[in-house]
Amino acid sequence: MKYRVAVVGVTGYSGLELMKIVLRHSAMQCVAVMASDATGEKPLGEIHPELRGVSDLTCVPQSPELLGSMQVDTVFLCTPNIVSYEIAPRILSQGMRVVDLSGSFRLKDGESYSSWYGFQHLAPELLSIAAYGLPEWNAKTIARARLVANPGCYPTSVLLPLLPLVRAGMLDPGSAIVCDSKSGVTGAGRSAKLDMLFGEVSENFRPYSPIKHRHAPEICQELGWDLGNFTFVPHLLPVNRGMLSTIYVSFQRPTTGRDIESELRRRYEHCRFVRLLGDDRLPELRAVNHTNFCDVGWRLTFGGRRAVIFSAIDNLMKGAAGQAVQNFNLMHDLEESVGLLEGESVAIHG
Amino acid sequence: MKYRVAVVGVTGYSGLELMKIVLRHSAMQCVAVMASDATGEKPLGEIHPELRGVSDLTCVPQSPELLGSMQVDTVFLCTPNIVSYEIAPRILSQGMRVVDLSGSFRLKDGESYSSWYGFQHLAPELLSIAAYGLPEWNAKTIARARLVANPGCYPTSVLLPLLPLVRAGMLDPGSAIVCDSKSGVTGAGRSAKLDMLFGEVSENFRPYSPIKHRHAPEICQELGWDLGNFTFVPHLLPVNRGMLSTIYVSFQRPTTGRDIESELRRRYEHCRFVRLLGDDRLPELRAVNHTNFCDVGWRLTFGGRRAVIFSAIDNLMKGAAGQAVQNFNLMHDLEESVGLLEGESVAIHG
Amino acid sequence: MKYRVAVVGVTGYSGLELMKIVLRHSAMQCVAVMASDATGEKPLGEIHPELRGVSDLTCVPQSPELLGSMQVDTVFLCTPNIVSYEIAPRILSQGMRVVDLSGSFRLKDGESYSSWYGFQHLAPELLSIAAYGLPEWNAKTIARARLVANPGCYPTSVLLPLLPLVRAGMLDPGSAIVCDSKSGVTGAGRSAKLDMLFGEVSENFRPYSPIKHRHAPEICQELGWDLGNFTFVPHLLPVNRGMLSTIYVSFQRPTTGRDIESELRRRYEHCRFVRLLGDDRLPELRAVNHTNFCDVGWRLTFGGRRAVIFSAIDNLMKGAAGQAVQNFNLMHDLEESVGLLEGESVAIHG
Amino acid sequence: MKYRVAVVGVTGYSGLELMKIVLRHSAMQCVAVMASDATGEKPLGEIHPELRGVSDLTCVPQSPELLGSMQVDTVFLCTPNIVSYEIAPRILSQGMRVVDLSGSFRLKDGESYSSWYGFQHLAPELLSIAAYGLPEWNAKTIARARLVANPGCYPTSVLLPLLPLVRAGMLDPGSAIVCDSKSGVTGAGRSAKLDMLFGEVSENFRPYSPIKHRHAPEICQELGWDLGNFTFVPHLLPVNRGMLSTIYVSFQRPTTGRDIESELRRRYEHCRFVRLLGDDRLPELRAVNHTNFCDVGWRLTFGGRRAVIFSAIDNLMKGAAGQAVQNFNLMHDLEESVGLLEGESVAIHG
Repeated sequence: MKYRVAVVGVTGYSGLELMKIVLRHSAMQCVAVMASDATGEKPLGEIHPELRGVSDLTCVPQSPELLGSMQVDTVFLCTPNIVSYEIAPRILSQGMRVVDLSGSFRLKDGESYSSWYGFQHLAPELLSIAAYGLPEWNAKTIARARLVANPGCYPTSVLLPLLPLVRAGMLDPGSAIVCDSKSGVTGAGRSAKLDMLFGEVSENFRPYSPIKHRHAPEICQELGWDLGNFTFVPHLLPVNRGMLSTIYVSFQRPTTGRDIESELRRRYEHCRFVRLLGDDRLPELRAVNHTNFCDVGWRLTFGGRRAVIFSAIDNLMKGAAGQAVQNFNLMHDLEESVGLLEGESVAIHG
Repeated sequence: MKYRVAVVGVTGYSGLELMKIVLRHSAMQCVAVMASDATGEKPLGEIHPELRGVSDLTCVPQSPELLGSMQVDTVFLCTPNIVSYEIAPRILSQGMRVVDLSGSFRLKDGESYSSWYGFQHLAPELLSIAAYGLPEWNAKTIARARLVANPGCYPTSVLLPLLPLVRAGMLDPGSAIVCDSKSGVTGAGRSAKLDMLFGEVSENFRPYSPIKHRHAPEICQELGWDLGNFTFVPHLLPVNRGMLSTIYVSFQRPTTGRDIESELRRRYEHCRFVRLLGDDRLPELRAVNHTNFCDVGWRLTFGGRRAVIFSAIDNLMKGAAGQAVQNFNLMHDLEESVGLLEGESVAIHG
Repeated sequence: MKYRVAVVGVTGYSGLELMKIVLRHSAMQCVAVMASDATGEKPLGEIHPELRGVSDLTCVPQSPELLGSMQVDTVFLCTPNIVSYEIAPRILSQGMRVVDLSGSFRLKDGESYSSWYGFQHLAPELLSIAAYGLPEWNAKTIARARLVANPGCYPTSVLLPLLPLVRAGMLDPGSAIVCDSKSGVTGAGRSAKLDMLFGEVSENFRPYSPIKHRHAPEICQELGWDLGNFTFVPHLLPVNRGMLSTIYVSFQRPTTGRDIESELRRRYEHCRFVRLLGDDRLPELRAVNHTNFCDVGWRLTFGGRRAVIFSAIDNLMKGAAGQAVQNFNLMHDLEESVGLLEGESVAIHG
Repeated sequence: MKYRVAVVGVTGYSGLELMKIVLRHSAMQCVAVMASDATGEKPLGEIHPELRGVSDLTCVPQSPELLGSMQVDTVFLCTPNIVSYEIAPRILSQGMRVVDLSGSFRLKDGESYSSWYGFQHLAPELLSIAAYGLPEWNAKTIARARLVANPGCYPTSVLLPLLPLVRAGMLDPGSAIVCDSKSGVTGAGRSAKLDMLFGEVSENFRPYSPIKHRHAPEICQELGWDLGNFTFVPHLLPVNRGMLSTIYVSFQRPTTGRDIESELRRRYEHCRFVRLLGDDRLPELRAVNHTNFCDVGWRLTFGGRRAVIFSAIDNLMKGAAGQAVQNFNLMHDLEESVGLLEGESVAIHG
């Protein structure tokens, strides 16, 4: 049984990554790939030479109506924010399901879009029905959803290690959570900007949008944490992919490495894609790149009153396309890891 | 039906790449991974953190006898040259098949090993029975072979574009073939050498072993070309993976882009992994990295008497692990592309 | 007037960087370069091809006695810790001055070397006479010193922004200072280690030695800050040079960007190498690499009760060789910037 | 004695590199920096944060007339081709001298600009008076010139090793010269192009403009070599700076390494910036980056009938800004190396 799927916004980095998974996914048949009018009609293999000889699909200008006529089951939107909130309603209204990789449906409060994203949301009524697509936490909601808001890459890397600790009431709400995050360039998309040139990024490293990054309210919304007590500083790494967050927290009471471990282990016992490294090993980009895993490690300080928590993901996989497919799997009652594990055949059929 | 396979020499870069394919390959069951005694007994996920949570295999010290006791069908050797020629006979003698990724069985003439590899070959009798594992050219021999010598990365990138032209008698044997090749660092293996430090390789580029690289006799042997009339200059690129060869040739008679194209197309018509880009597009690492493809392009010069031919492969895939699996597939009468295509499910079951 | 200087430990990255400055410095004449016995006697241009045609010095095995016989004024030690504390006394006893770039004389408490450096210090009596070579703070002591302990790279990047705030009593001593630092590979020295290979560092990013790095006690010693209330987490960047520290602090009372700026400006008014970027611009590696500058920026949070402070230096310049020369200049009553400014001629003679 | 100089087109990579030299040059006083109208009026330190605290110059919109009013002696043009040929005449006519780093005055034949550069040259009368600024070959002409056309980066890397051999009649004019060149990204300038993004260049390598690159006619013009018998293939390296050319030549008669060495040594005996590595060492980017040197090495093949010649330069230094300053020095009867050597003080005053 294969579901008919489509990818809109296929020209970017997450679009390409998603296509690679979609094409090898045993329960998907990709029937349409679309992009902006500017791209025009073009073989997919010309847009992404990696896919020459792999797929003979042709990319066409994006059209919700065309998708409707093709009996598509699920549409992945890799489109910019302002495209997603415009076309998602038109796709949903024709009975298709949507997994949106943009930020357009992640915040529950429509007003937040004005202040953090700088636009007036055109489909605020969808915000309450959109499921926040963090599979490890919202599996049941996602399974029933017509519209899934795929989480941001930074939020994914921060929520997975912190949610268990916050929900268990271990963190001191009066103390700040400090997130010092570092991301590869593909997180910034694929458009011709001077400050993203190789000549500017290579042999460089820099913070950007400190305090004011739009992923901060998304993280706090999901954590249920006071935004005023949350400090988020993203940095740009001279790598293509991968994201590492170093998170500084304070506990309500003295805590041991074992306390952290048991809480995380309890929560993620049945989660294939969270790997707990404990307090002796450390996450790094290499171990997660090109995979859907989130690696988590930690170190206690200050006599167990504080801790440093490390998490690493591939921003294009667990931070975007991989998580989108994980959501798709949940929405279609499939094993969560279909299409996402190197050892897939072993894991699934073994 | 799954064949029981083992990987020996799993700690290096090609060992890791091979494991990723083996674990997702629908007709392989990996029953043993081995490495040198120095590595000792260690979970695979500790050696390669990428594989934590993907495989629970434990790496053990290499032992042909242990392999024999495990009913292994095929053993992949990712071992150094001087290990391969020592253990391959002991594996073969127990009835297992071997795909060797080292250089130990590529040259037909045992004496050449003294001059080019600097050692006396200990199993020269195997050189005549080893099949040279270039699937696009030796499929039938490979299918019957007990021992396959997986080609070198540089030879693969040079032979695929040149063999059709040489075999068709298009090249002028009195003129030199010049191969200017550039490779990523993983081609040099994973050992602690000063000149392979990040601090030495990054923001650097350099030729090495010009004229005298051991892949030159391998290329000439397979081309049937006079080594004295062949100039091979490899260079080290500051990238992890990928290899591009720029090859300068002279023709017997004036030739057109169409002549080249028709000859290549005729030869590779049924070959999934050779992509012909023609005389208007150009190969690049990005398009082939993490794939098993070889991309080939060309430009005519000097009124059609000469040409520049470009080819690109991923040195770890088509140049090593991918090609080894392609050989395995042929040896087991499987579709050549099993485990090797992003769009595998489509391609195979579609 | 030129002072006769020597560089011992010239084979590493900081040795090379120092040589480049020494050779262009208008008040230095380099009369000897030395390295370990393993290096033997070798032209400097063979050790560092960058210096072929620039210097015809020959590197010889290190010998304090030979230095003594050459009427050397000042010796720069770019040697490992355990070499520095062995030869520094022998150089000093012959009347020469020493600028030591290792960590051997930075801590005042000899016992700390056992716990943080893992060795018993052989010349603890020198710890009290060594000047801590942070020119912006200890200029007078440095000017009189026979032995200068050149600060660590991380400490330099952290002390320059924090010292003014700590000394002014602005920081809350009951709250933790969190230093999230990121460094290029040259900070780790030039030795053949597996985890420093290009293949391991490139496209990677990882924390290392969190909490336990030996630069933490050095920072706290100079800040006069409780080590138990200081969290230091270094990370390895895939760049050759450059270091950026993101520092999270809490204030005693609500503070404005203007408060920070005026305090820093007051302290660094006459310091050529500290550049204050304010609360609207941000430091980055590019702006400081190949210079002796330290760039400092900041952002207020939590209604002015906390701040994020950013600082960037070139770990080989202000973090090592550049600062060593700045110290030399102070020790010889020269303009602090001799040899260290792109616009040197303008600045000095203009 | 300081000459008043100006830099026009200061916003790009070669503009920045030139400023660094100009500011430390003992015989230059930089009185004006200019850029396109789009840049507007802006402190130099805001355009290039590297220069904050080094120079307090303000960049203004480019104006030949303003330059005339400022008693400027020499103007460096780092402007695009179509700007250079427009403003150079207006600067020259006011009595100032010009060193142009663009390609606008390198070709002697005005018609070539239509075919290779795609524009009709607006000041063809200047082509005959422009000196080709390769100091090692045209020192006397340059010394007298009012307008110097600074050579292209590729031509510099190819001409320096080949000119002695061609002039000595050693090369076989009936055989092709093959130049396989590789350049860092700064050679392509600093403008927001999709294919120059970090995400496209990093972990990539690709040929571009094979055969048809506009530096081919420039090289052949200076060599006096038949363009039809010259094959030039440039490639883009994932590095910021540095250029390496691997050049394949055929000799008229059997030649030894000693023959090549003696010819090159004879020609470059008094040239500070050409370093001959012989037939046992090899050039690499690291050794020349951030210097004005050109390193040359070679290997004989085919019994001495052919050779591979390697040359490396820093495309921003010897390939652009460094060579421009070398030309300035000649034009003003200064020591050729002023401002260009790490060991300048030693070399000049020593």
